[in-house]
Amino acid sequence: MRRRSWWGWGYEGEGLSEGEMEALAALAGSQFGVTGSRLVAPALGDVDLPAPRIEAPGALGGILSSEVYERASHAYGKSYRDVVRALHGQIDHPPDLVARPRTEMEVVSLLDWCGEAGIAAIPYGGGSSVVGGVEPDVGEGYAGTVSIDLGKLNEVREVDEVSLAARIQAGVLGPDLERQLRPYGLTLRHFPQSFECSTLGGWIATRAAGHFATGPTHIDDLVESLRVVTPAGVVETRRLPASGAGPSPDRMFVGSEGALGIITEAWVRVRPRPRWRFSASARFESFLAGAACVRALAQSGLMPSNCRLVDPVEAMINGAGSGSSALLLIGFESADHPVGPWAALAEQCVRDHGGVPEASPWNAGEPGTGTGGGWLAAGAGSAVGGRTERSAVGGETETGRPAAKGSGAGGAWRSSFMRAPYMRDALVTMGVMCETFETAVTWDRFESLHEAVGEAVGRALSRGPAADAGRGAGRPGASGASGAMVTCRVTHAYPDGLAPYYTVLAPAVVGGELAQWDEVKAAASEAVLAAGGTITHHHAVGRDHRPWYDRQRPELFGQVLRAVKETLDPAGICNPGVLIGGSEEGYTHSSGQGHSLAVWPGTRPLS
Amino acid sequence: MRRRSWWGWGYEGEGLSEGEMEALAALAGSQFGVTGSRLVAPALGDVDLPAPRIEAPGALGGILSSEVYERASHAYGKSYRDVVRALHGQIDHPPDLVARPRTEMEVVSLLDWCGEAGIAAIPYGGGSSVVGGVEPDVGEGYAGTVSIDLGKLNEVREVDEVSLAARIQAGVLGPDLERQLRPYGLTLRHFPQSFECSTLGGWIATRAAGHFATGPTHIDDLVESLRVVTPAGVVETRRLPASGAGPSPDRMFVGSEGALGIITEAWVRVRPRPRWRFSASARFESFLAGAACVRALAQSGLMPSNCRLVDPVEAMINGAGSGSSALLLIGFESADHPVGPWAALAEQCVRDHGGVPEASPWNAGEPGTGTGGGWLAAGAGSAVGGRTERSAVGGETETGRPAAKGSGAGGAWRSSFMRAPYMRDALVTMGVMCETFETAVTWDRFESLHEAVGEAVGRALSRGPAADAGRGAGRPGASGASGAMVTCRVTHAYPDGLAPYYTVLAPAVVGGELAQWDEVKAAASEAVLAAGGTITHHHAVGRDHRPWYDRQRPELFGQVLRAVKETLDPAGICNPGVLIGGSEEGYTHSSGQGHSLAVWPGTRPLS
Repeated sequence: MRRRSWWGWGYEGEGLSEGEMEALAALAGSQFGVTGSRLVAPALGDVDLPAPRIEAPGALGGILSSEVYERASHAYGKSYRDVVRALHGQIDHPPDLVARPRTEMEVVSLLDWCGEAGIAAIPYGGGSSVVGGVEPDVGEGYAGTVSIDLGKLNEVREVDEVSLAARIQAGVLGPDLERQLRPYGLTLRHFPQSFECSTLGGWIATRAAGHFATGPTHIDDLVESLRVVTPAGVVETRRLPASGAGPSPDRMFVGSEGALGIITEAWVRVRPRPRWRFSASARFESFLAGAACVRALAQSGLMPSNCRLVDPVEAMINGAGSGSSALLLIGFESADHPVGPWAALAEQCVRDHGGVPEASPWNAGEPGTGTGGGWLAAGAGSAVGGRTERSAVGGETETGRPAAKGSGAGGAWRSSFMRAPYMRDALVTMGVMCETFETAVTWDRFESLHEAVGEAVGRALSRGPAADAGRGAGRPGASGASGAMVTCRVTHAYPDGLAPYYTVLAPAVVGGELAQWDEVKAAASEAVLAAGGTITHHHAVGRDHRPWYDRQRPELFGQVLRAVKETLDPAGICNPGVLIGGSEEGYTHSSGQGHSLAVWPGTRPLS
Repeated sequence: MRRRSWWGWGYEGEGLSEGEMEALAALAGSQFGVTGSRLVAPALGDVDLPAPRIEAPGALGGILSSEVYERASHAYGKSYRDVVRALHGQIDHPPDLVARPRTEMEVVSLLDWCGEAGIAAIPYGGGSSVVGGVEPDVGEGYAGTVSIDLGKLNEVREVDEVSLAARIQAGVLGPDLERQLRPYGLTLRHFPQSFECSTLGGWIATRAAGHFATGPTHIDDLVESLRVVTPAGVVETRRLPASGAGPSPDRMFVGSEGALGIITEAWVRVRPRPRWRFSASARFESFLAGAACVRALAQSGLMPSNCRLVDPVEAMINGAGSGSSALLLIGFESADHPVGPWAALAEQCVRDHGGVPEASPWNAGEPGTGTGGGWLAAGAGSAVGGRTERSAVGGETETGRPAAKGSGAGGAWRSSFMRAPYMRDALVTMGVMCETFETAVTWDRFESLHEAVGEAVGRALSRGPAADAGRGAGRPGASGASGAMVTCRVTHAYPDGLAPYYTVLAPAVVGGELAQWDEVKAAASEAVLAAGGTITHHHAVGRDHRPWYDRQRPELFGQVLRAVKETLDPAGICNPGVLIGGSEEGYTHSSGQGHSLAVWPGTRPLS
């Protein structure tokens, strides 16, 4: 039985091998000058958690736990802030108890109990939040906190093969969801980078963006109806392909991040597994030249399933080139028909925009390619994403069967995709700050946003304790004096705009990791907001984005959200501090403790 | 200067010619046995409205009117209930005053005044509501009512040619909007049947569905951001191509039907005018056989711009065939590339499903084709929609110029399209009940819904005063003993479901028109709800759909809406009775007056 890591990504014992660690350490040393000993997560026995402030009532005793493993592993999501704190053994706000309800009725009972006892209820899906969405940092006024892990609500309950829809429980992890749909020849085709350790309910609660680089790609568009347990009762919306009957009830809960209740199941739109795929790549002289082509493709109506642009340095890091050109990945897929005509038109568009198609197309149509932090880590292989498969139109999925797990190039790719977040954690143990942020902005504002973000992050990296870390890293795609880097890729493209995704890499400031990152994050967020972007395209708001979210959303809509919350959650127990409530004006981490990192006893400090 | 008809569709003096009326009367006589004299709308001088209960304050005197023409023409939308009441000179709830604000600031001032004086404010766009959405039937407790006509807020204010978006004032009518976009080579491509007399703000407020038969077609997906004047203040959402930052603020106002405030402008996603078009038609043995093909096309990913299925009788009425086969209209269009490969795949799909492509494809890609009640009336021509143009790939729009108004086949079609609602009104004057209703439902439930709706409507038609009007009309597509008909077409298709659109035609019960229609409508609505459909796919809720909407939406979402309304409209002055408020349980017409129609003095009664 695999067990999830309590401090970092994925499953215990599935991190990098010692050989892989050594190779990565050598790279980190040469790029960032980090040569100290590695940070090792404290043993659970050494983690000293405060005693739970609340006790499980008899009726719910069977589903509530106060074990250290449970509490520690539900204390954080998987942001850099989270991983670095856990690695130092600093558990700021562990839940007092962790619940694992087995039925929706038990979710109802849990919320009833929390409401009566004044306990904050934090829904927990796969725990992959990178915005503080699952951290029980709820402020004063609660008797305690319970992390409600929906992992046991993990079944596909019903499949409507005529309408191509399935009723699925919210706590199912990505791979389990796909495994259960496979016998029907169906797929949800929603593959965020967090796919392995995130859930349907989490995707809906956070408006996750998925597989498709163009066209409807947010989970918003895949939800046909949903069920939400709120303290005021259960809401079930009607299964409908479309409706004009008043404001959409679904859209009030999609993106509600647990603040209005707990999503327990949804009917989602599924589709037949693709049989035809085409993938290729092209080179552009610059990132902006590539972006012009992405805009043309997004506005063409061709709707490529993949259309991801990687800046020169990020491409180089991923082993794809020398850093002199940007890389565009294009893919088409269909369960219905060959996609050759689409591919030919896209190739013409690429050439019209000065792109040079590469000679060896490789398949980039698999789960998650380019939707998250995967390429960087996967770049320990050769090509971007480790993908060297040459199947063009037709190919290995012709039979409708998925690429075999662990076999052939597809298996290799899948393996490297799944291992990517482990590699991020490994870098953190080596003293490398490694984090991402993302936004979306209309095309007319993209260039100025991109420039402003690069400058702001570069300045933040070169200030304060990080000293010269960021010098020269001001232009995205450039590398700073201490090897610090800000790179960018375009993960999703729309006719009216795009979603740029930034990765920041720099030598970490020992003992000052949170302050270092928080300064970068604040600078980036200010730049994004000033330049007309959104504080998040698909990472959600959580607690970390609150100050900027509160400024981004219309003030009256904030009042609307508060009124909605008061209606559904009158006691304010649902994920307090997330999205709404708490300090409305410029919410800040109570966890940051003045941005200094307290090193927990029993932890091996970063040398 | 054209002036809108106060009682029916469109503009004064632009109805049917006497010759056309005579030809139509002959048809109505032979089909429905209606042979009496025609109803003629009373002269305005004969319409006796109650004196306004409120007076314009000095500061707003310039934009408020109590003229009979203004009050009478803003008393109703354009449903059968509305037209028949107006024709009888029965004006149930005329607004006390009509406002025509010229600026957003004047909208603010109007709502301020209404709030202070306890006056109900009814936003009025093009007045094309068929669900009682603009009728000032607000119940007790108001000092009076003001219809706020946004017609003077009719400009495209800004065009972002890079992001393909435009900032447009809410009161602009469809043709004016397109006229202002044309110099940029752009189009909103949103063409509901009401296009000529409906506005951008109305489309957004009612979640209108548009041009495209597949893919994103609701205005919901075209809204990039919006501004709403609420009694609590002005809300402006951020221009973004996509966002994951909390529940969408836009989606709270899209579909709010004036109950939360008045939409004054929006950034909407526009697109280049199409250069390549393909249109064709095919025959199927039955409506359900055609529907199976529509499902395959909707699930194929080909996303035809047109994919509309007409049942045999409706096809026949439109002059397309003998009533023995269903008709499928397919179209593709693109501004970027030829659409031949798409068309070829669609043709194969049609053949695979037993469809027989017709030899002479004709262009069906123009505004509004099949999105409303147009085909029926337009059927006085020859082909469905009167469209006989043979442009296939390429064609008249190659240059990016629209089909010339009034010239050639395109002009003829446009002309018949615009005249369709006039013909509906003409039928009503001849004593024919002529109305439509629509829904959306998942594919798995379509057949049972379709059967249940046909039976329910047939039964309702054959009950009560309508006596034998409906006998035999139980199966959609069949014609009853008195010529009564229930026909169906599929206007929009989704991967997980479809939107069937029903037309009911029957000899009207003189003096009992409202009761006759209300019985049909109630029967249809009950059947739709019981069979899993939505009470509306794109006609909105208004006042007429309230009883079924209240049962369809989750009860807690009703409470959410009330909380939102209390936040934004604490005095409850915004379009009271629509969507929320009023009698929450089974709202019924106060206008129906026991479902008997009071014939107003000075009216020539239906013989």
